[in-house]
Amino acid sequence: MITIGIVGATGYTGVELMRLVTMHPDVELKVVTSNTEKNEQVINVFPNLRSHINLKFDQHDTEKLNECDLVFFATPHATAMKQVPRLLEKDCRVIDLSADFRIQDPEIWETWYGVKHACPEIINTAVYGLPELYRDKIKDAKLVANPGCYPTAIILALLPAIKNSLIDIKDIIADAKSGISGAGRKATLATQFSEIAESFKAYSVSGHRHLPEMLQTLKSINGDDQIELTFTPHLVPMNRGIFATVYVKPNDHTVTMQKVYTDYYEKELFVDLMPPGSHPDTLSVRATNMCRISLHPGENEYQHTIILSVIDNLVKGAAGQAIQNMNLMYGFDEATGLLEPGLIP
Amino acid sequence: MITIGIVGATGYTGVELMRLVTMHPDVELKVVTSNTEKNEQVINVFPNLRSHINLKFDQHDTEKLNECDLVFFATPHATAMKQVPRLLEKDCRVIDLSADFRIQDPEIWETWYGVKHACPEIINTAVYGLPELYRDKIKDAKLVANPGCYPTAIILALLPAIKNSLIDIKDIIADAKSGISGAGRKATLATQFSEIAESFKAYSVSGHRHLPEMLQTLKSINGDDQIELTFTPHLVPMNRGIFATVYVKPNDHTVTMQKVYTDYYEKELFVDLMPPGSHPDTLSVRATNMCRISLHPGENEYQHTIILSVIDNLVKGAAGQAIQNMNLMYGFDEATGLLEPGLIP
Amino acid sequence: MITIGIVGATGYTGVELMRLVTMHPDVELKVVTSNTEKNEQVINVFPNLRSHINLKFDQHDTEKLNECDLVFFATPHATAMKQVPRLLEKDCRVIDLSADFRIQDPEIWETWYGVKHACPEIINTAVYGLPELYRDKIKDAKLVANPGCYPTAIILALLPAIKNSLIDIKDIIADAKSGISGAGRKATLATQFSEIAESFKAYSVSGHRHLPEMLQTLKSINGDDQIELTFTPHLVPMNRGIFATVYVKPNDHTVTMQKVYTDYYEKELFVDLMPPGSHPDTLSVRATNMCRISLHPGENEYQHTIILSVIDNLVKGAAGQAIQNMNLMYGFDEATGLLEPGLIP
Amino acid sequence: MITIGIVGATGYTGVELMRLVTMHPDVELKVVTSNTEKNEQVINVFPNLRSHINLKFDQHDTEKLNECDLVFFATPHATAMKQVPRLLEKDCRVIDLSADFRIQDPEIWETWYGVKHACPEIINTAVYGLPELYRDKIKDAKLVANPGCYPTAIILALLPAIKNSLIDIKDIIADAKSGISGAGRKATLATQFSEIAESFKAYSVSGHRHLPEMLQTLKSINGDDQIELTFTPHLVPMNRGIFATVYVKPNDHTVTMQKVYTDYYEKELFVDLMPPGSHPDTLSVRATNMCRISLHPGENEYQHTIILSVIDNLVKGAAGQAIQNMNLMYGFDEATGLLEPGLIP
Repeated sequence: MITIGIVGATGYTGVELMRLVTMHPDVELKVVTSNTEKNEQVINVFPNLRSHINLKFDQHDTEKLNECDLVFFATPHATAMKQVPRLLEKDCRVIDLSADFRIQDPEIWETWYGVKHACPEIINTAVYGLPELYRDKIKDAKLVANPGCYPTAIILALLPAIKNSLIDIKDIIADAKSGISGAGRKATLATQFSEIAESFKAYSVSGHRHLPEMLQTLKSINGDDQIELTFTPHLVPMNRGIFATVYVKPNDHTVTMQKVYTDYYEKELFVDLMPPGSHPDTLSVRATNMCRISLHPGENEYQHTIILSVIDNLVKGAAGQAIQNMNLMYGFDEATGLLEPGLIP
Repeated sequence: MITIGIVGATGYTGVELMRLVTMHPDVELKVVTSNTEKNEQVINVFPNLRSHINLKFDQHDTEKLNECDLVFFATPHATAMKQVPRLLEKDCRVIDLSADFRIQDPEIWETWYGVKHACPEIINTAVYGLPELYRDKIKDAKLVANPGCYPTAIILALLPAIKNSLIDIKDIIADAKSGISGAGRKATLATQFSEIAESFKAYSVSGHRHLPEMLQTLKSINGDDQIELTFTPHLVPMNRGIFATVYVKPNDHTVTMQKVYTDYYEKELFVDLMPPGSHPDTLSVRATNMCRISLHPGENEYQHTIILSVIDNLVKGAAGQAIQNMNLMYGFDEATGLLEPGLIP
Repeated sequence: MITIGIVGATGYTGVELMRLVTMHPDVELKVVTSNTEKNEQVINVFPNLRSHINLKFDQHDTEKLNECDLVFFATPHATAMKQVPRLLEKDCRVIDLSADFRIQDPEIWETWYGVKHACPEIINTAVYGLPELYRDKIKDAKLVANPGCYPTAIILALLPAIKNSLIDIKDIIADAKSGISGAGRKATLATQFSEIAESFKAYSVSGHRHLPEMLQTLKSINGDDQIELTFTPHLVPMNRGIFATVYVKPNDHTVTMQKVYTDYYEKELFVDLMPPGSHPDTLSVRATNMCRISLHPGENEYQHTIILSVIDNLVKGAAGQAIQNMNLMYGFDEATGLLEPGLIP
Repeated sequence: MITIGIVGATGYTGVELMRLVTMHPDVELKVVTSNTEKNEQVINVFPNLRSHINLKFDQHDTEKLNECDLVFFATPHATAMKQVPRLLEKDCRVIDLSADFRIQDPEIWETWYGVKHACPEIINTAVYGLPELYRDKIKDAKLVANPGCYPTAIILALLPAIKNSLIDIKDIIADAKSGISGAGRKATLATQFSEIAESFKAYSVSGHRHLPEMLQTLKSINGDDQIELTFTPHLVPMNRGIFATVYVKPNDHTVTMQKVYTDYYEKELFVDLMPPGSHPDTLSVRATNMCRISLHPGENEYQHTIILSVIDNLVKGAAGQAIQNMNLMYGFDEATGLLEPGLIP
């Protein structure tokens, strides 16, 4: 049994962490923080947690966090970086679900996030928390940088192909679509129900913060610096889900990628390679930690192979993956607390 | 550990039963049936259950059901009544989630459901499966008639008031609203996405099948035959949830109903009486077995007291309540498998 | 041809007014104002109006308004009251879509709206802009108080019954449901897509500002002070629409209300009395100025008669009714610009 | 004034045609047909048309159609081809909104649509009804093949680039997303509200019927046979809208496509080229005949240029474009009846 704290527990990622934690047998939630709801009962903000959580929100920098074995940050960027060094000193381990420790090069990070990094010297101690790629390093990490939602879906779609040098790495397109909860739980005009309900749109086409994160990770797979990725995020009028349609050019279109992917993901509990020609949908992974992938090979040398990849942005794309990382860090079974099936409808 | 079967597992109630069963430690699912998907793998119809259920659908009247300890019927009406007598003979116990055994008087049943009842002689052996009212009888029942979704929300809203004779029983209005999953999982024009998404409407205003079920149960509380209930169901463009707005006239508007309700439901795990003036919503009970109730007293003798009651129609209104009944019938802890918090968003 | 201005044109009521005005042959839009989008092109905020409107937003109190024949206020409460006296002095006529001039008694208004009224002395010059009740007065009005969305749907549902003394006026319940656009176009957490999409709920059960407005108007019909109304508003996860389920007790349940209503509304272009037993829905009136009503009589003396009434909250419940009032004020055909059929789906 | 008939008026395209026709000053609707609703009043099926249309549905092959000047087919494929030859003989002109006359090569048509074509000999008399490409031919056409919804959005996105040889025609990807109304108005399980509301998915990834239609038209622009197009359709949980994200490789990435597109579409009323870097959304074109396009150039030779194109699938993608074609055929102003702004929200 370990004790944990959650900083920034009033966002969708935060409340999802609380939901998952209530179902985890080896974890005791000791502290939750929120600067906006300080001193408020958790259940007054989230009545779905009535009878499950009996805590009040503390402010973010409460001393109580020091007493936790593990602290999750479910905060906007530029918050965790201010608190993490002190927590690491107190021997707390940290899983940061924000972007503060995902980019190894502080200059790149500062360019995309527009603020000075508060502790560039510890970025390189952070492990990128994608278990399918860095499982062993995660086990010993003091500080885990939990991946973004788009990167999780897209990297898992590409990992076996790049690892096995099957595709032209200078010609990759990821057309990705996200449910609205990805925009966070905050009062903005653009995500009002009436602005969204009949609206589908692309956004940040000229450049999205998840692009450098994906490039860094894809380049690390084979140490290949030449990867080119065109990434277009879109917003879908639904709550949860990332759907990535990834277009690649096989180096040899007679090679059966299905076999390579099957072998690669055979032992992964949370990647489900579907039969050839399948059409995974976001509903089938809702509320689960699963990534479902299917492959649609092109028919000739001009046609792209299409890789479809779906996750729940709040689970495998955020809180669930964080729990999976926690399980690895503390030697729990990797799937503990993450095995409930998807909710339909 | 008991073995169970589910007849009619391709509907929303059926797939919800399968979802809940995968999370229940004391149950082994042996048989699932479907006349439309016979011989098909469950996971091909419901990919959310991939890695959770490794069964094919049998046809409804398969002999395999006889070998189960307990059989759930998640079928449209007039199906269970044809199979239940044979199963009871084989010492299977049965929880029928359809309407076949809810109405004690076969003539009333036949009037509302438009077919001849196949086994009127065993109707009176059925126990109405509302644990908050008939917990002790359920424990010993061979055949449980699981309540309808509207009746569950509305009866729980009224139970303490009628039990304690607090209201004018000849002047009750239940204005109820249901998510679309209540219409079942079938191909109909009226429940197509485009017919529903911007459409709110009442239906069956002249008379809905849940009315006689509610009247029978409400009358049974104090043995009072004079109850009058006006019931209007509506359809809401959302997936899950029943919201009942119940209008009653207190016999004495100086009596504090809040206190009576608090006492009445104090020990109930799945009825959550909220603080006075609260506004429960369907989202807070989604995917849970909880009924949330709040009271809004009128200010003078002319004003009605308003009782708000919300459930998830597929859980407390169907599959979850069935699991709760099963727990009672087999001596499991009543809450086993039913304690996960609601899913937000 | 008249010239008009719209104050507060960045809300949903404002943009709906702009949409309707572009289709009206006798109106020239000269000024639109917005304090938040001052100096911004209209089409940058509302790209649906590209090629239709070539104006910039001015600030609310621009002198340009003085030059308009008619000014619409589509502002939150307590804004119009500060500008209207000056405009009336300049011989502008005014249609106020906010609540500032709806309540004749300033004390009642101040109690419900929580601010001091800026010009109580002119309230009684305002005509309540419900054409079906006050058509003749509207024609000559300098200042029209355009009705609220709930009052429009509910008063039209009750008008013939009260006028003809058919019902017990001390026992009326209006259970009303509104689409989310009724909450306005502003950045609030409670109306974020993810907070709304699977959430149905009641709100302001203890008292909503539209209650005194309805009581005042209903009492004015026959001069009867004794009317009691229980009103419960709910929020529906859809964009547009008000659905009112109104429960009344007929004084004589053998009288056929259908005939009375048919006669009463025979010549009204924007009230559509449907055949007995019909189920109107919000989709059928979307984007139209129509109110659809149907009657469902109870079967005995204990049962309520149920009146269903639907409108589009932004059209007949706001901007469309304002155009209808304008047509009356300027002698245009009452239906000009308001005859397009509903949008399905 | 011309007289028209609509065959298959109970689908979403049919009811949209009826809606548009009620707002067109030069058209009299004489006949509407439906095999499923034969002899039913139109307004009983579509209450939004109450007071607008006073007709009953006839069966598809009614003789009455012969008396119309123009007949629209809003039927599934393989219906129009059986009736069109007879109508042309009677000097009716025809606009077919189905696919029967879109593909010039009957063998290709039969491969994709799976039935024998009933009148291959008249296919080459049909004009493809995209005014921006074939305006002059449409004016004199007896038979117009109205384009599919995906082809309309995607061809308009590519037309100036291909016409001016700006891009690599062997490397085009169209990732397209459609609202649910595109699936038609019929009772299917897959498009039930509860199956769709939280589900985003790709479909027909291995090949969609609109692919050969697009290839034929794109090849016709410059007579270039080598065009390669990867096309992936997706389904979005919303009613209306097509959103196409089109990825192209400029032949010379220093050329400014924005200028070429601006010039090309300068005089087109229903193509709105937005400023560089814009993010058009489906809501801004809802209920309008407008196609909004924006360009996002890549930054180096490896990056794709991204073209975003949005339409309302039922208007510019079907019924609106059919009215536009009718206006051309009869010498009405091309925009008659098509100028109302989009509906927000």
